[in-house]
Amino acid sequence: MKSAVSSLVRSNNSLISRTLLYHSSKPISQSPFFLSNIPKNLFNQRYQKLQFSPNSTSIMASLSKSEQAREPPALPLPSPPLTKFKIGLCQLSVTPDKERNIKHVRKAIEEAAQKGAQLVLLPEIWNSPYSNDSFPVYAEDINAGGDASPSTAMLSEVASRLKITIVGGSIPERCGDKLFNTCCVFGTDGKLKAKHRKIHLFDIDIPGKITFMESKTLTAGETPTVVDTDVGRIGIGICYDIRFTELAMIYAARGAHLICYPGAFNMTTGPLHWELSQRARAMDNQLYVATCSPARDPGAGYVAWGHSTLVGPFGEVLASTEHEEDIIIAEIDYSILEQRRASLPFTKQRRGDLYKLVDIQRLNSH
Amino acid sequence: MKSAVSSLVRSNNSLISRTLLYHSSKPISQSPFFLSNIPKNLFNQRYQKLQFSPNSTSIMASLSKSEQAREPPALPLPSPPLTKFKIGLCQLSVTPDKERNIKHVRKAIEEAAQKGAQLVLLPEIWNSPYSNDSFPVYAEDINAGGDASPSTAMLSEVASRLKITIVGGSIPERCGDKLFNTCCVFGTDGKLKAKHRKIHLFDIDIPGKITFMESKTLTAGETPTVVDTDVGRIGIGICYDIRFTELAMIYAARGAHLICYPGAFNMTTGPLHWELSQRARAMDNQLYVATCSPARDPGAGYVAWGHSTLVGPFGEVLASTEHEEDIIIAEIDYSILEQRRASLPFTKQRRGDLYKLVDIQRLNSH
Repeated sequence: MKSAVSSLVRSNNSLISRTLLYHSSKPISQSPFFLSNIPKNLFNQRYQKLQFSPNSTSIMASLSKSEQAREPPALPLPSPPLTKFKIGLCQLSVTPDKERNIKHVRKAIEEAAQKGAQLVLLPEIWNSPYSNDSFPVYAEDINAGGDASPSTAMLSEVASRLKITIVGGSIPERCGDKLFNTCCVFGTDGKLKAKHRKIHLFDIDIPGKITFMESKTLTAGETPTVVDTDVGRIGIGICYDIRFTELAMIYAARGAHLICYPGAFNMTTGPLHWELSQRARAMDNQLYVATCSPARDPGAGYVAWGHSTLVGPFGEVLASTEHEEDIIIAEIDYSILEQRRASLPFTKQRRGDLYKLVDIQRLNSH
Repeated sequence: MKSAVSSLVRSNNSLISRTLLYHSSKPISQSPFFLSNIPKNLFNQRYQKLQFSPNSTSIMASLSKSEQAREPPALPLPSPPLTKFKIGLCQLSVTPDKERNIKHVRKAIEEAAQKGAQLVLLPEIWNSPYSNDSFPVYAEDINAGGDASPSTAMLSEVASRLKITIVGGSIPERCGDKLFNTCCVFGTDGKLKAKHRKIHLFDIDIPGKITFMESKTLTAGETPTVVDTDVGRIGIGICYDIRFTELAMIYAARGAHLICYPGAFNMTTGPLHWELSQRARAMDNQLYVATCSPARDPGAGYVAWGHSTLVGPFGEVLASTEHEEDIIIAEIDYSILEQRRASLPFTKQRRGDLYKLVDIQRLNSH
């Protein structure tokens, strides 16, 4: 494991409001409190304060211009339940033996927790080989739970027993006659807090290098996923989802502290784009990005690049690994988010008079 | 000069339409042809073709979903007037002697053209020291032209004489009682084809590292700038404009082949974000990105990072330099754009049912 924590600037001049938005156990997308009452109240408070400052007109005009750049307006960063904690990224080997995979993952989570991780992130498709042939065979009925989903039953049990949050990588999910690539988030009580179905399916064709068509077997998810946990507000994307900047921008606008991307980039796009994508999403949205890949198996049908990584809100790589099995333990410090945003106040500087990003589901929930 | 041209995939399976959109001498934002007639016609043609294919319904649904992600819908990549050409990035020293700066830039352009460059890119603020004190002193009345703007008069003369396109970095512009940070684009006939006024002013405050407030003296521009030239459709951003992903996304949606960012990142944000921003904009939007900085002068009030760079549409650094004066000559090959977009068809895969980027000016022109 390499670790390169950058010592960057510190500042107390935060311009980002702390709010009382936080304490919901529901996924944020299900919270009416989140979707309706909060933004207006907060923005009103902001403006009322500004009306007493000497040059309030120009500041108001400028703020209003930047807030138009997100429809609905971006939410302020919520106060997380804790500021500093350790995340564990479990880059693990995956075999065709599902029972072994489940045991192996359980052991890795226990090891990460034992080393202090309060949040554990797992790889994309960790209970099954990554192939269109395997997805239907290894898929589980997550909604039915229990014996119908031994992989998520294990995650629930271990989260509850160890009192940690688990962003459970992904497994193939069967729901009726459809298959999804699905990430389950379990809270410290072992309850399923959110389920993200990969929104952007991995359909690429680089002749002579890599061709894969997830859409042959999988159905795309219909919902961006942001979830409030004991370790902050987390946006979820699975692998190819990281390609689409809009998803990360929506998560930032919904107040995410961290985006977790379980992912299995391949040997062609991995070296080109895996780290670059993570750093770009973190820098542009000024939040933490964590990724977790399966370990590389050169004998597998699909060879994963590896290189699970934690990136800080200046786009700096805080911890990363190579392609072998590894458990990375790294520190997240949410107080840095406000420092970074005060130093480079992109949020206040956007030109909502020229462009606007619409979060369609949040807009329709108003 | 370092040069690291990646040998990446080649493919003829292009999914991007070539169109007859191209031959306009006006900036794209002024062309009614561009703004109204083309998109509908092209998309109709596209759909009519698809109706004859066996599984047209699902393809149409998917295309329609992805096209909703841009409002108005993204334009197809136009056929550029030429496919391969050389670009010259002139990373130059800037002094308080304006007359010397103008002569120095003229000489550099001549050298770049002599080495084969058909497009020359200059640094941000190349005729004046970069400081709020200097901007009013060095500012020129570009609209008045002639003696009122010796810097742009030189660019016009040299572009016409050498029959090259010049993206003229930027200079402080005076217009009435306002000052702007302005980039002029000159065509091979020496005519001013477009003028970009920096949209996002550089107001940052990283205590103990770098504090600069352009807005103390400068006014922000009001218009994204895309211009059709003899060397392709070019989007323009100045320095801090590169921070705002939406601007690059709008340029891509307007059919840009290349985005040019004259820029003078500093010694704090340069090492952190200069290359990362360029590579991210190129990778995410699948187009070329070229940047040009002043050479570093450790004795200046504002110390530029340097590192002018050309990035290809996979986010790969094609040519870059260190911080000293240098003229980089590098090859641009627009045929690669279509290959890259066929390999990774982000454009067709966006989820317009979940997010939408609105280009407000183009929308209002419809």
